[in-house]
Amino acid sequence: MSHIVVIGGSDAGISAALRAKECEPSAAVTMLVADAFPNYSICGLPFYLSGEVPDWHQLAHRTLDEIEAAGIQVRLHTRALAIDPASRTVRVQADGHASESLEYERLIVGTGAEPIRPAIPGVDHLGVFLLHTMEDSFRLAEYLDTRQPQRALIIGAGYIGLEMADALWHRGLAVTVVEQVDAVLPTVDPALGLRLGNHLTDHGIAVRTGVRIERIATTRAQLRVTGSSMFTADVDLVLVVVGVQPVADLLHHAGLALGIRGAIPVDRTMATALPDIYAAGDCVETYHRLLGAPTYLPLGTTAHKQGRVAGENAVGGHAEFAGSLGTQVVKAFDWAMARTGLRDHEAAAAGYQPRTVEFTAWDHKAYYPGARELTFRITGDRETGRLLGAQILGDWQAGVAKRVDIFAMALYHQMTVAQLLAVDLSYTPPLGSPWDAVQMAAEHWIQSVRTERV
Amino acid sequence: MSHIVVIGGSDAGISAALRAKECEPSAAVTMLVADAFPNYSICGLPFYLSGEVPDWHQLAHRTLDEIEAAGIQVRLHTRALAIDPASRTVRVQADGHASESLEYERLIVGTGAEPIRPAIPGVDHLGVFLLHTMEDSFRLAEYLDTRQPQRALIIGAGYIGLEMADALWHRGLAVTVVEQVDAVLPTVDPALGLRLGNHLTDHGIAVRTGVRIERIATTRAQLRVTGSSMFTADVDLVLVVVGVQPVADLLHHAGLALGIRGAIPVDRTMATALPDIYAAGDCVETYHRLLGAPTYLPLGTTAHKQGRVAGENAVGGHAEFAGSLGTQVVKAFDWAMARTGLRDHEAAAAGYQPRTVEFTAWDHKAYYPGARELTFRITGDRETGRLLGAQILGDWQAGVAKRVDIFAMALYHQMTVAQLLAVDLSYTPPLGSPWDAVQMAAEHWIQSVRTERV
Repeated sequence: MSHIVVIGGSDAGISAALRAKECEPSAAVTMLVADAFPNYSICGLPFYLSGEVPDWHQLAHRTLDEIEAAGIQVRLHTRALAIDPASRTVRVQADGHASESLEYERLIVGTGAEPIRPAIPGVDHLGVFLLHTMEDSFRLAEYLDTRQPQRALIIGAGYIGLEMADALWHRGLAVTVVEQVDAVLPTVDPALGLRLGNHLTDHGIAVRTGVRIERIATTRAQLRVTGSSMFTADVDLVLVVVGVQPVADLLHHAGLALGIRGAIPVDRTMATALPDIYAAGDCVETYHRLLGAPTYLPLGTTAHKQGRVAGENAVGGHAEFAGSLGTQVVKAFDWAMARTGLRDHEAAAAGYQPRTVEFTAWDHKAYYPGARELTFRITGDRETGRLLGAQILGDWQAGVAKRVDIFAMALYHQMTVAQLLAVDLSYTPPLGSPWDAVQMAAEHWIQSVRTERV
Repeated sequence: MSHIVVIGGSDAGISAALRAKECEPSAAVTMLVADAFPNYSICGLPFYLSGEVPDWHQLAHRTLDEIEAAGIQVRLHTRALAIDPASRTVRVQADGHASESLEYERLIVGTGAEPIRPAIPGVDHLGVFLLHTMEDSFRLAEYLDTRQPQRALIIGAGYIGLEMADALWHRGLAVTVVEQVDAVLPTVDPALGLRLGNHLTDHGIAVRTGVRIERIATTRAQLRVTGSSMFTADVDLVLVVVGVQPVADLLHHAGLALGIRGAIPVDRTMATALPDIYAAGDCVETYHRLLGAPTYLPLGTTAHKQGRVAGENAVGGHAEFAGSLGTQVVKAFDWAMARTGLRDHEAAAAGYQPRTVEFTAWDHKAYYPGARELTFRITGDRETGRLLGAQILGDWQAGVAKRVDIFAMALYHQMTVAQLLAVDLSYTPPLGSPWDAVQMAAEHWIQSVRTERV
C-alpha cells in the first residue's frame, strides 16, 4: 500500500488524488488544503461576483463529502511549510496547531498560482483588490455589498479582466477597463481584440488601451488612478488582474531549480527532478504539443489533465501528458472569443513559415433565422500547409467554443488546413452549412496562400 | 483545354463544376440542370414550407449569376437522355426542343436521388405529397396556401419526417407522424428515438410507431389513412417521406452494373468503371471510412465533398474521397439529435466488439444559468478501446452538432475513447466544463467497460 500526499486541493490536486485512488484503490491518499475550499471552480468567481451564481457553494466541482467518499483524507486549513526529499517528509501546519512532519512515498505538488501584484504605488489601499481565491472573492463581495461602489476600474484586460468587466457591469457598476497594450485580450490577435474592445464599449464599458497605470491615490472617499497618456480616473473600486505567477517556493527551497517564469520543471509524466515528487497545474511548466517544448500556460483544463497524469503515475502508472494546445475561450457580454494553437508570431518564433488569414462566415445557413457572423483567423504553415492555430470571435451562443475544439482536434493530430475539408462534419441548416464555417475558413486560407504564390 | 460535362445542378454537380474551374481555369465546363433551380438547398425545404424562410429564392446556395460568373455554362431545363461512353457523348434535350448530342472529354454524373414512392394504395390521390425537389415544395406550398389543410399525416419519421412535423406544426396544422419501426428516427438508437418521440408528443404531435400504413382512401373532403395495429386517421394532407433511392438509370443504360440499393459504384477518386466518367452525390455508393467499404448514405455534406473530388480529378487532379463517417444532425422542435460513426449493431456486423454506453452531462457548468442536459451514447470497441461512434441528444442550442463534430474528428483519426481525454479542449463556465461533456461521456464509457471486465 503506497502513501500519497497531495499538496493543494484545487484542480490539479483533486484530479491527482482522485486518479490515484481510481488506479490503486488501496493507496492511502492525503490531501492538504490551505483553506476550506477544496475543488472549487476558480473560473466561476466572476459569475458569483456578478450575482449570476447566487450561492458560492454552487462553485464546488465536488463537495468535501464527495471527495472524502472517494477515500481521500482531506486536511483543511493545513499548509505545507517545507518538503524534505531526503527523508520523504512534508512539514505541515494546521491553522492554530503546531507543525508536524508527514511522511510520503510519493508526493504530488499542486500549489497553483498566485496573482501578480504589480509594483504600483497605492496597490495596497483599501478598495484595491486582487482576485484569485475564494477568500479574495468573499472580500470583494463584501465590499460590493457593504460599500455599494458605483464606479470600478479594472487593471488588465485579460480573460479575468473581461469577465469581471461583464460581472461588475451586470451588478450595475460603471466600469473602466485599462490595458497596457493596444487592444484588449492580448492573448489573441489585435484585430480581434480591437473588435472585442468595441463590443465592450457598445455595452457602456470605458475601454482604455495603451495605458500603463502608475499610481493609485486615495482622495476623500475615492481612489484616484493615474497612468500614462494622461490617464486619470476617480473610482470606488480597483481590481488588479494582470496575470498570475506559479507558487513554487516549496520545491525551490527543497533544492529544485525553477524554470520559465519561476514554474516547476516537469517531464511528461509530471515528475520533477526530485525523487518521487510529481507536480501539476498552475505551478508547473506545461509541455506545449505544437512547440514540443515547455511553456507557462496556467489553465484549469490543463491542470485537470496534468493532475490526472500525476495521480496515475504516483501509484505506479505510465501515463504521459499529451501536451497543451493553448486552447482557451472567454465569454464577454454577448460574445465569445476562443483560440487554440499558435498565433502568427508564436509560430514564426518556433521556426514555422506562418500565414494568418481572416475570414467571416455565418454560423448556420443565412436563410434560417438567427444566423450570426463568426470571424475566424486561421494560422497555417505556408510551406507545408500544416494548421498551426485558429481564433474565432462571435456570438457566444453561435458555437464558437466547440468550433475551436474542432481546430484543437485537428492540431492534436497535426492536420494540414486542407485536410480539414475532408472530414465529415455534421450539417442541418439551423446549425451549420454543408461545409461548416470552420471548413469555409480553412478553404479561404488555402485560396489566400495559393493566390499569394501565383 | 478539356471539356467537362456535368449532369445535375445540385450539391454534387455544382461542387464538381466549381472545383474543375478552380483547378483548371481554362477548362470548358457545361452543367445540365433538369429544372430551373441549380444549387438550391434541398435541406432547406422544410424551413421554407414552415414559413421560417419567407422567400424560396433564399434557399439558393448560389445564384445562377454567381455560377455563371465562375465560368460555368449552365443549361437549365435540360435533361440528359442517354450517355454513350464509346463516342463520349451525352444525348440531351432542352424542354420544348429536339434532342441533341453533346460531346465530353470527361463526364461527371450528379443525378442525385428521388424519393421512394411506397406501394401504398391511394398514394397518388390529390393531397398526398412526396418531397424532394423545389417543384415538389412549390406544389405542397400551394396546397397549404389554397386548401388550408388543418390536419396532416406524415408517413416516415426519418430526418425529413421530423423536420416536416416541426414545419407543419409551425404553420398551425395538427400533425400525426407514423413510423413503421418502434421509435422515431430509426437511424439512431431506439433509446434516443423514444425520447425524441416524447419530445414531439410534448409539442402536441401525435406520434404512432410500429404502424405500417396500408391504404390511403378518399372520403368526401378528406383522406382516410389506415394501417396496421388498427391505425386510422382522417386528414387533409399526407406527406410521404420514407427515404430516397439513387437516380442511376443513365449510367445503368450505358452499361454500368449498379451496386448497393441501385447506386453507382465508384472508386475513391469518384471514377466509375466507365472510361472518363465520374459520379458523385446521392446517386453513388459512398465509401465509409470506418467500414472501409461502400454504403449508400445520401447526404448533402457528402455530395459536396464527393463533387469536389470528382471535379478536381476530371481536370487531371489526384484527389481522393476521405470517406463518410455517417455524421448527421437534425433539429426537431427544441432538440437536436446528432450521430457520427457506427451504432452498436453496425459495428458488430463489421466485426468489432462494440459496447455502447449512455451518459448524461450538462452542456456547461451547472452553476452558470441555463445549463441543459445532453444525453450521449458512445460506442467503442471493448477489446481495443477504439471509438466507433457517438450519438448526442439535447437542446438544439446546447452545442449538440459541434460536439458530435469533435467525435467525428476523433473517428477520422481512429482515436481510442481514452485518447479523447488527452485533447486540450476549450473551457469557460458558460460554455463547457474543465473536462468537456464529450470527455465526461468518454470517461464514463471507459469506466463502464472496465467495470464489466472486473
